[in-house]
Amino acid sequence: MSVASSQVAIRFHPPSYDIRVENVPIPEITHPDDAIVKIHFSGLCGSDLHVYRGHEAVDKIHTCGHEFIGQVVKLGSSFSVHSQRLPTLYANLKIGDKVVCPFTTSCGECQMCRSGFTCRCIQSKLFGSPALEGAQAQYIRVPNAGGTLFNLSDPDTWPLSTPKQVSDSSLLLLADILPTGIFAVIQALSHPKVLPVLAAAPWPLHDLASSDMLGLFPKENVPTFAIVGLGPVGVCATISLLDQLGKRQLPSGFRIVAVDPIESRRNKMRSIYSKVCDSKVQSRDVFVVQSIEEAKETVQTWTSSVGCSAVLEVVGNNSALALAYELVQPFGTISSVGVHGERPFPLTGGQLYDKNVSFDFGRCPVRSLFPMAFDLLIKRQDIFGGVGDESGLIDRIVGFDEAVEMYAAFDKGEVGKIVFDPWRKKIID
Amino acid sequence: MSVASSQVAIRFHPPSYDIRVENVPIPEITHPDDAIVKIHFSGLCGSDLHVYRGHEAVDKIHTCGHEFIGQVVKLGSSFSVHSQRLPTLYANLKIGDKVVCPFTTSCGECQMCRSGFTCRCIQSKLFGSPALEGAQAQYIRVPNAGGTLFNLSDPDTWPLSTPKQVSDSSLLLLADILPTGIFAVIQALSHPKVLPVLAAAPWPLHDLASSDMLGLFPKENVPTFAIVGLGPVGVCATISLLDQLGKRQLPSGFRIVAVDPIESRRNKMRSIYSKVCDSKVQSRDVFVVQSIEEAKETVQTWTSSVGCSAVLEVVGNNSALALAYELVQPFGTISSVGVHGERPFPLTGGQLYDKNVSFDFGRCPVRSLFPMAFDLLIKRQDIFGGVGDESGLIDRIVGFDEAVEMYAAFDKGEVGKIVFDPWRKKIID
Repeated sequence: MSVASSQVAIRFHPPSYDIRVENVPIPEITHPDDAIVKIHFSGLCGSDLHVYRGHEAVDKIHTCGHEFIGQVVKLGSSFSVHSQRLPTLYANLKIGDKVVCPFTTSCGECQMCRSGFTCRCIQSKLFGSPALEGAQAQYIRVPNAGGTLFNLSDPDTWPLSTPKQVSDSSLLLLADILPTGIFAVIQALSHPKVLPVLAAAPWPLHDLASSDMLGLFPKENVPTFAIVGLGPVGVCATISLLDQLGKRQLPSGFRIVAVDPIESRRNKMRSIYSKVCDSKVQSRDVFVVQSIEEAKETVQTWTSSVGCSAVLEVVGNNSALALAYELVQPFGTISSVGVHGERPFPLTGGQLYDKNVSFDFGRCPVRSLFPMAFDLLIKRQDIFGGVGDESGLIDRIVGFDEAVEMYAAFDKGEVGKIVFDPWRKKIID
Repeated sequence: MSVASSQVAIRFHPPSYDIRVENVPIPEITHPDDAIVKIHFSGLCGSDLHVYRGHEAVDKIHTCGHEFIGQVVKLGSSFSVHSQRLPTLYANLKIGDKVVCPFTTSCGECQMCRSGFTCRCIQSKLFGSPALEGAQAQYIRVPNAGGTLFNLSDPDTWPLSTPKQVSDSSLLLLADILPTGIFAVIQALSHPKVLPVLAAAPWPLHDLASSDMLGLFPKENVPTFAIVGLGPVGVCATISLLDQLGKRQLPSGFRIVAVDPIESRRNKMRSIYSKVCDSKVQSRDVFVVQSIEEAKETVQTWTSSVGCSAVLEVVGNNSALALAYELVQPFGTISSVGVHGERPFPLTGGQLYDKNVSFDFGRCPVRSLFPMAFDLLIKRQDIFGGVGDESGLIDRIVGFDEAVEMYAAFDKGEVGKIVFDPWRKKIID
């Protein structure tokens, strides 16, 4: 496959709010484990805005973006030799394979990777950062490609038998936002403070046999959740939560309040829910989309001021953490997947002690969650597959000529999920 | 049973370091759900020191202490009528019954109690605080006694069949420190970030079937734990952790470092461990007791700088939290049962995000953990049952005449667990 020597890319110029579309060299293989991928689509993500706004004090010009889907065009020498390395990772990838990539690299071989915690790989780098050139380009270099890339041309990965069409732009959502939404959900639903209410049994679950409170579990304790932040990741988290709770067919039902201060985001969430609710939600289940103040009142009313079983924090700032703390019940858990900065934590140890709060922080190990995310992506093509529908997740697919404008509009919350087609010419003049 | 009208009690006088033994009235029933208990033993606990040192800015003179075992001498009218209330809680308690009491009250009827989160009962009060007179006295009033007290005279509770003698002073440990230590352990061992390493399988456990990383779990990832703080609660946590891990017979074994800056505490821990290790620990298991600096090095060496699977924080200050953060691995969990104050949290959201840390904070729901704690208390009478042994948990049983001296010595870390016998006359002199 022939590759030109220069390409177009969206570049960040410090200190802030300065995005330029520029010609840069096409990357080369620099390590035997590298792959070069020709990008079909790349995403604009909420966490791109942290750099854009100057919040991360990045002082290096670099190519933006950490979400992409594309095709392998070059491979380092590791892929052509028979080695003793983990075979599924470095034996199967071929030139021409269609791949989707997590937003961070992972070697697949270190202790962290093999324990499933791929986003904390000891060699991990974040695409679109000063450490590694990003995906809002036509080509990208992928370090540790055997451990990092998810091979969509591998028949073991790609369920060819599925009758549904899966759009390429929807596959891009596997790079970050869909697994990150799922991550927020499974952290909450697998927490030992949340498992009991799902089972309608008192804590601690594993000690059921000897608990003298067995049989006393209160009917009014219905699993209750808040999702704080309805950007694209928050929407993915909500769809995943509805899916996961729907599967469980809880006798008590469940209650969810999805919260965002921006009206257009709330409306988008409602449109999307109108598709989901038909198929998944039982009559006793309750789902509402509300502003912050409305949500506080709703949780008070639903729970007689006790609070939510769990809160998903999908924003990444102190006001979102403080709201999550306010909404969660004593002995509740907060699953925080927002990217937090270095400002002082908004809660004291005393507040955390007094409410017996649990927190799960951090970055999604996308590579480990691909199988789950892939299942949900296929199942809900009605939401993830379309572009520009009122009830679809992706708002627009644009060329790089609209990059400056789209960054500004996304920064202001005026557009939803934006996907770049790096090969598209401007259609309307 | 006849009751005198005045009693002796240990009272806190604001603002700090002022403890006095005084005559006060014997409490009366003030609510139909009350019980009056004649105290056999009451404990001096690390969290008594928060008030003693003036850290909680308590401005009210009150009776100290929140750990006691004793005998019911008066009951409110709720206990003598047949009601529709939860029968096991308010029907079985009788005058003359031997009881042990959690350090906070719990009604047993509200949503929090019936969900097992008894320490966050909506009516909960802490003994030995401005809200409720304490246990370092001869008599105590117990609100919500039907939900709060654990009835040791109830044949369903008290396993009469057990061949072992259980000392009264050891039963006092059920009031707080033994369940609190167990709480620290079960929060860590039931956490979804810790369950995989115990199962030697990659995260996320529940998605095993579809994970393409199955079978790759690294042998070098051995379950590794640190316990920060070897006061009496830390010792209980350590014994419980050794017991729980011992039961699991992990093929990989486990590694534990128990950490305290005070040498006498480390020596006590080692003596106690010498009893435990014979019966519980397999040859591949590793247990060490170390200073802070030693422990940092040990964890680095053991884990090739990855860190501990989980850290139990049993101190309740910012340096302990910061140490726990330093020792824990990315995707590790910190189980914090120390009582934290209102100082700023020592970590930023960015630090928590960057390490994918999970935290479980808060007070032990003692009432829910009585069955587990009771089992361990009986099983390890060799440690909990003696007084003043090198390898026993309780250091001394003293009369109130030694109260001032004991508070001062405990504050300085010069003595271990102190138990008061409110009826004891001074023996020497």
